[in-house]
Amino acid sequence: MKRFLDEDFCLKNETAKKLYHTYAENLPIIDYHCHLDPKDIALDKVFGSLSELWLSGDHYKWRLMRADGAEEKYVTGDGDDNEKLRLWAKVLEKSIGNPLYHWSHMELKTYFDYEGILKGTNADMVMEHCKPYFESKQISARRLIEKSNVTHICTTDDPVDDLKWHKKLCEDETFKTKVYPSWRPDKILNCEKDGFASYIKKLSEMSGVEITSLDGLKTAIKLRIEYFASLGTRTADHGLDYCFYAPCEEYEAQQIFERALRGEAIAESDALKYKSAMLLFMAEEYCKKDWVMQLHYGCSRNVNTQLFNTLGADTGIDCINPINPSGSLAKLLDAFTSKSVLPKTVVYSLDPSENAAIDTIIGCFQGKGKGYVQHGAAWWFNDHKTGMEEHLKALAAGGVLGNFVGMLTDSRSFVSYTRHDYFRRIFCNLLGTWVEEGEYPNDEEALGKIIQDVCYNNAFEYFNLA
Amino acid sequence: MKRFLDEDFCLKNETAKKLYHTYAENLPIIDYHCHLDPKDIALDKVFGSLSELWLSGDHYKWRLMRADGAEEKYVTGDGDDNEKLRLWAKVLEKSIGNPLYHWSHMELKTYFDYEGILKGTNADMVMEHCKPYFESKQISARRLIEKSNVTHICTTDDPVDDLKWHKKLCEDETFKTKVYPSWRPDKILNCEKDGFASYIKKLSEMSGVEITSLDGLKTAIKLRIEYFASLGTRTADHGLDYCFYAPCEEYEAQQIFERALRGEAIAESDALKYKSAMLLFMAEEYCKKDWVMQLHYGCSRNVNTQLFNTLGADTGIDCINPINPSGSLAKLLDAFTSKSVLPKTVVYSLDPSENAAIDTIIGCFQGKGKGYVQHGAAWWFNDHKTGMEEHLKALAAGGVLGNFVGMLTDSRSFVSYTRHDYFRRIFCNLLGTWVEEGEYPNDEEALGKIIQDVCYNNAFEYFNLA
Amino acid sequence: MKRFLDEDFCLKNETAKKLYHTYAENLPIIDYHCHLDPKDIALDKVFGSLSELWLSGDHYKWRLMRADGAEEKYVTGDGDDNEKLRLWAKVLEKSIGNPLYHWSHMELKTYFDYEGILKGTNADMVMEHCKPYFESKQISARRLIEKSNVTHICTTDDPVDDLKWHKKLCEDETFKTKVYPSWRPDKILNCEKDGFASYIKKLSEMSGVEITSLDGLKTAIKLRIEYFASLGTRTADHGLDYCFYAPCEEYEAQQIFERALRGEAIAESDALKYKSAMLLFMAEEYCKKDWVMQLHYGCSRNVNTQLFNTLGADTGIDCINPINPSGSLAKLLDAFTSKSVLPKTVVYSLDPSENAAIDTIIGCFQGKGKGYVQHGAAWWFNDHKTGMEEHLKALAAGGVLGNFVGMLTDSRSFVSYTRHDYFRRIFCNLLGTWVEEGEYPNDEEALGKIIQDVCYNNAFEYFNLA
Repeated sequence: MKRFLDEDFCLKNETAKKLYHTYAENLPIIDYHCHLDPKDIALDKVFGSLSELWLSGDHYKWRLMRADGAEEKYVTGDGDDNEKLRLWAKVLEKSIGNPLYHWSHMELKTYFDYEGILKGTNADMVMEHCKPYFESKQISARRLIEKSNVTHICTTDDPVDDLKWHKKLCEDETFKTKVYPSWRPDKILNCEKDGFASYIKKLSEMSGVEITSLDGLKTAIKLRIEYFASLGTRTADHGLDYCFYAPCEEYEAQQIFERALRGEAIAESDALKYKSAMLLFMAEEYCKKDWVMQLHYGCSRNVNTQLFNTLGADTGIDCINPINPSGSLAKLLDAFTSKSVLPKTVVYSLDPSENAAIDTIIGCFQGKGKGYVQHGAAWWFNDHKTGMEEHLKALAAGGVLGNFVGMLTDSRSFVSYTRHDYFRRIFCNLLGTWVEEGEYPNDEEALGKIIQDVCYNNAFEYFNLA
Repeated sequence: MKRFLDEDFCLKNETAKKLYHTYAENLPIIDYHCHLDPKDIALDKVFGSLSELWLSGDHYKWRLMRADGAEEKYVTGDGDDNEKLRLWAKVLEKSIGNPLYHWSHMELKTYFDYEGILKGTNADMVMEHCKPYFESKQISARRLIEKSNVTHICTTDDPVDDLKWHKKLCEDETFKTKVYPSWRPDKILNCEKDGFASYIKKLSEMSGVEITSLDGLKTAIKLRIEYFASLGTRTADHGLDYCFYAPCEEYEAQQIFERALRGEAIAESDALKYKSAMLLFMAEEYCKKDWVMQLHYGCSRNVNTQLFNTLGADTGIDCINPINPSGSLAKLLDAFTSKSVLPKTVVYSLDPSENAAIDTIIGCFQGKGKGYVQHGAAWWFNDHKTGMEEHLKALAAGGVLGNFVGMLTDSRSFVSYTRHDYFRRIFCNLLGTWVEEGEYPNDEEALGKIIQDVCYNNAFEYFNLA
Repeated sequence: MKRFLDEDFCLKNETAKKLYHTYAENLPIIDYHCHLDPKDIALDKVFGSLSELWLSGDHYKWRLMRADGAEEKYVTGDGDDNEKLRLWAKVLEKSIGNPLYHWSHMELKTYFDYEGILKGTNADMVMEHCKPYFESKQISARRLIEKSNVTHICTTDDPVDDLKWHKKLCEDETFKTKVYPSWRPDKILNCEKDGFASYIKKLSEMSGVEITSLDGLKTAIKLRIEYFASLGTRTADHGLDYCFYAPCEEYEAQQIFERALRGEAIAESDALKYKSAMLLFMAEEYCKKDWVMQLHYGCSRNVNTQLFNTLGADTGIDCINPINPSGSLAKLLDAFTSKSVLPKTVVYSLDPSENAAIDTIIGCFQGKGKGYVQHGAAWWFNDHKTGMEEHLKALAAGGVLGNFVGMLTDSRSFVSYTRHDYFRRIFCNLLGTWVEEGEYPNDEEALGKIIQDVCYNNAFEYFNLA
């Protein structure tokens, strides 16, 4: 029996162990997509307790606590902090097979040197164990990033953001990790949503461009893209409920945009047209900057209206949108290709049953460079051992695994960097297993290169992190 | 090599064996959803032969026999009983990897002490072996239930059923197993189907309420729910071709119902509105009674028109309806939640590619109690080793495995209780494997509790089986 | 550690090894569906280099090369042959987990006695190694087929094809392998596509029937079917973007056909009606001839417009069409059954998430003979180890694995016969693993028969290859 969470965690055979410890374990980390707050990094936010660190913003954990019947007071409410952690420990013990079981214990081990188990009956003891780490202020944004050996971080930012914290970070020579903003223009696309007109007004102010037409909008966008680029942006990110492509003439986009600016209701079919036109426009700008376009889709957000009205977004009430979104992915990529504006693109669907389809689709649009179109790492609800293994196997069977740009955290937490280690172990285990079972030669040179490429070099190259 | 079907069947490592034999093997059984006939239990039906026991009503077996080209005469027809069993043995031998291979041999071992193999060439010998068991009348409904250590059975019953056999069972103190009716009101919802009006007439008679309006219908339903409750009902069950939610005003439901009562054709969109309204109404009643609502969907029934015209329903001509039904599940659960009428709910889809989606959706509606919304056990065509493992892994990755209410039989046969043993072995093997591979600590206290909860206690608590 | 690609490749335990080497390894091959050119066989085409053999027509390899950023000149263009092979070797090395890694090395071992590895740094050495094999002209169509021990080949042919090469092969007594044409009438169905009218004109010429009405079309089809049958045809094959069934009256089919003949645009809904009518008509003809009908669906073809305009079809720009096509499969099979024209049918979907659905659907239409309706082998993008294992497990769980008609190549290449060996190893490994783990008895007689049936006998019988 393997000991839980020992140094060979997830590594089931000798080749896997050797590959991981020789080639993966000590690589630095590129986190090319996350939701960390740049202000926290700039000000080096210090965390005061395990409860604050873990439970103040993590909707993954909130979901499990609710699934155990915890009162909302102890989930997102003002309940006692220690009691929150006790309730979390209670449900964690029962969550065998859940990635949070692994993540939580990896975090305790990595950042608090705690090698034991957290369970319902010992939550207070574990809090006591961790106390000195908080008291000595080592559990801070920068210390955690440094301890995790992170070389680059790409946050997620709105086009109207002033990026002042990114500017400060740019100027701060005491902090070695590069922190870049990423361009997330969902609100520019969502012309059918409440608040669109006032958002465009804000964009007008931030860009200094009066926006009364589509041309004005495009000028403003270009200026903001310039501004983002000046602070090191390498990638844009789009969140779509589902994937779509609706051909749209310029004059149509113009009309729909103007109607939306006037606050008129926009039908879904018109919204899709406008969005398609804007995706094409932005893709062209990304090409000019050699930015990577990330497409996240297949997600229904805020499906529990009652909780949404009480708690707002990002509170653990999102789910897979199983409407076979990938049907339109081929059409969207074809539109980019036909107009010669296909940027480097990373595709993520929240529906894991689409893995194989996505891999066959992106295979139709390759050719502009090594791994030009990518199938992004197992996303969100799929970011667990089975999910990652299935993603990697599908990717391998349908393309070139050695060209994969690898893992990201997609997290709001500074202790989520263990997810890179988790990924690396699972990845090396998969490779080691193939070798042990005679399905790939025991060619350490080739294997070592694949591992270093997937775990660091490919992302470095793909995102132009010179 | 492990011996076939030995005492460690399905248990691949020492931890799995220990967990199963210590914590699972001897637990009693709660069968919270099945299709047993209460009359057979009340009258203690005695079976006369293996052919009668196995082939008289089991559409699983009929499908395999047809897939081997057996004439219908020997499947559901009046062919010779021994010949039927011979044909069954012939196809069984070739059905490697099919759950019926395991189920059949488990049943022979458990109820007939036959530890050998059944194959094409020895069907007569096996029948001979089993003969004394039939002659001594021990192969009867009650003896089989007792031998299986079943504490509670929830059958499936129509609102217009008089439940006379349940009443008899209630009054019969010689039989220890509790047998409760379950409320299956599909015919109240299916306003677009032939026979709706005459069904409502029957409901009117059984309830003593004149039903000429929606109010009358609701009054009748409430009375029948009271009657079911008086005989111990703990759960309602809905069978839906696919999942849906169509908002419906009271007056619309009223109009659609009245048109249906007059025998008018009801369009699908109207039927969905009426059904949505009735689901909401019933959910509220279930909440009042603390009944569990079960939702079974994703099934196309009677798709072979020719066989349906000859043989009728439940004859092995149903299949997965792969139209991504879970897309609407979030909307339906949100409607219940918004109106504060979300009962404890168990969701089953026949499409296994929806496992992950379902687990993310139910996670958005938790919070009212431990494991309040459940992803039901791998259903029907998925009730095999791979299907159960995939269901359990998805459940674990997306929620709290230790809160799962566990297995049911969903069967028409009194020898299907071995499926609980099958599930327990597969479940313990999964847990044991995680422990052996260092993915969960070897914490026997925690593991033992998870096993006892999932295999018995959770269902006991969830279904209020005090 | 197992050695890469040794004699026990893919065989992970002793039972698997024994089963494979005893029952599968030396069986001859039936290739009941491929895209080999009968002219190449008739003229015994000789290949001149590894680059020609591998890269001149294989869109699988082209996709991987593009995914590595290779210039199109070295993919399908006029780049240097040796350089093409070097680029192929470079990407192959990184394609761990891809079936092409296995296929390529199996082909090198089987046809060139090369047991080493092909990688980026040794492509020239491998080319040098293979040179004598090309120089001695043993790398020819017939030598490769003979070396592969193929007894029957069914090519894929258009109804207007004159089949002259098949005729020559029929008359050639020096070549033992039977080569039969297969009937692929997609162009007769695609009434909505450009060129339909001129295609029908060609059909008219080839059949000698003037086609101005649906009756004329049917007469021509019957004559061509007779002609195909006279040259040994055993099977028809239909490629559909997605599965459908649209009921269509004779007069409607007649009108749609006439409009299409006049070159009018045909709406999709009308095209589906016409196609449904024609599928029913042809199914009836297949029944008369006892031909097997193959249905391939769930594929979007030529989705990269830019490459399609440059390179044409079959150039590596096809993908899974994930629109849940199987929803209509039950309706189509029911239409055949209701009209008593269900031929033996093999169903393939390109979307692997539909495996379970397909297995439950075909189970509803069995009964006319052993394995009458089949779920075809893992197709195209699914033709890899994981894909085959998942297909086989789904098939086993949902039906009778021992009745499966087994593997095909679906290939344009004469060295793809190793895929049969690959399948047999994976199949024997699955069976051996079940036995080793105590899930099926170690009954060598039963197991040996299942293997020989699935790997040869079932196809021989199913396709009437007396």
